[in-house]
Amino acid sequence: MVLSGIWKRPENSKDPPPDLRISHAKDLEPDAVQDLCASVGWSRREPLLVSKALNNSVAVVSVWDKDVMVGFARATGDMVFNATIWDVVVRPSYQRCGVGLLVMRELLTELDSFDIPLVTLYADPGTDGFYKRFGFCTDPSGVRGMFREKL
Amino acid sequence: MVLSGIWKRPENSKDPPPDLRISHAKDLEPDAVQDLCASVGWSRREPLLVSKALNNSVAVVSVWDKDVMVGFARATGDMVFNATIWDVVVRPSYQRCGVGLLVMRELLTELDSFDIPLVTLYADPGTDGFYKRFGFCTDPSGVRGMFREKL
Repeated sequence: MVLSGIWKRPENSKDPPPDLRISHAKDLEPDAVQDLCASVGWSRREPLLVSKALNNSVAVVSVWDKDVMVGFARATGDMVFNATIWDVVVRPSYQRCGVGLLVMRELLTELDSFDIPLVTLYADPGTDGFYKRFGFCTDPSGVRGMFREKL
Repeated sequence: MVLSGIWKRPENSKDPPPDLRISHAKDLEPDAVQDLCASVGWSRREPLLVSKALNNSVAVVSVWDKDVMVGFARATGDMVFNATIWDVVVRPSYQRCGVGLLVMRELLTELDSFDIPLVTLYADPGTDGFYKRFGFCTDPSGVRGMFREKL
């Protein structure tokens, strides 16, 4: 695992900063990702598929407290014109102390290093305020997100 | 260029079917893509970046009338859990005769062949009715598309 930095406590945080580490590695153990996702109620997926999806992502950020993954996000895209952020998740016991900010800042910094002009995401209800802090806006010029789930 | 099929006239088409060919090749000439995009008013991009973006897409469909590209779409994604469709475009003189349907069907068939459960896109105003024909729905469960353009 490549560790690219040590977490710095956000200026406005009221909570003590845990000793968190940041990783941009894609070769994460699927179980670690699944364990984090399960902590927020997401369903488990086939480990080999998780590894393949991570490897095919253009950027992956995970945040760790010792050997426990406490935050995660990834992005897909063409590495040129656009990227789409998926699976932004923070372990419940680490929420509201800046881990989500940290994950998003790390991911956006990596995407910006590729000079990708457009970054998109699909925000769950009630989360758009969080993403607006990073410059995201909802439905610009009337553009609407659409979804098709395979039966 | 790999040609995967010959266009069949849609049942409800009122226009004579041109002799169209379908390609799933990624190694398209950037000028051909740019020429099509310029026909609908999109700005030109650096050819090397266009090639890189095509190569990094998970699926690319183009439709040709002889040596003229008349329809195009591509998708990015992780090849496992999700894909996002971009740049759906039909040359104006070929609009309203089934080329858009053809492009979308070819692209979705390719994505479905990978068993990707979720396909998303961002629909320009007034185009959501077109995408609903393929099973896309807008803002399911209140999920909203968000965009961040790099300054």
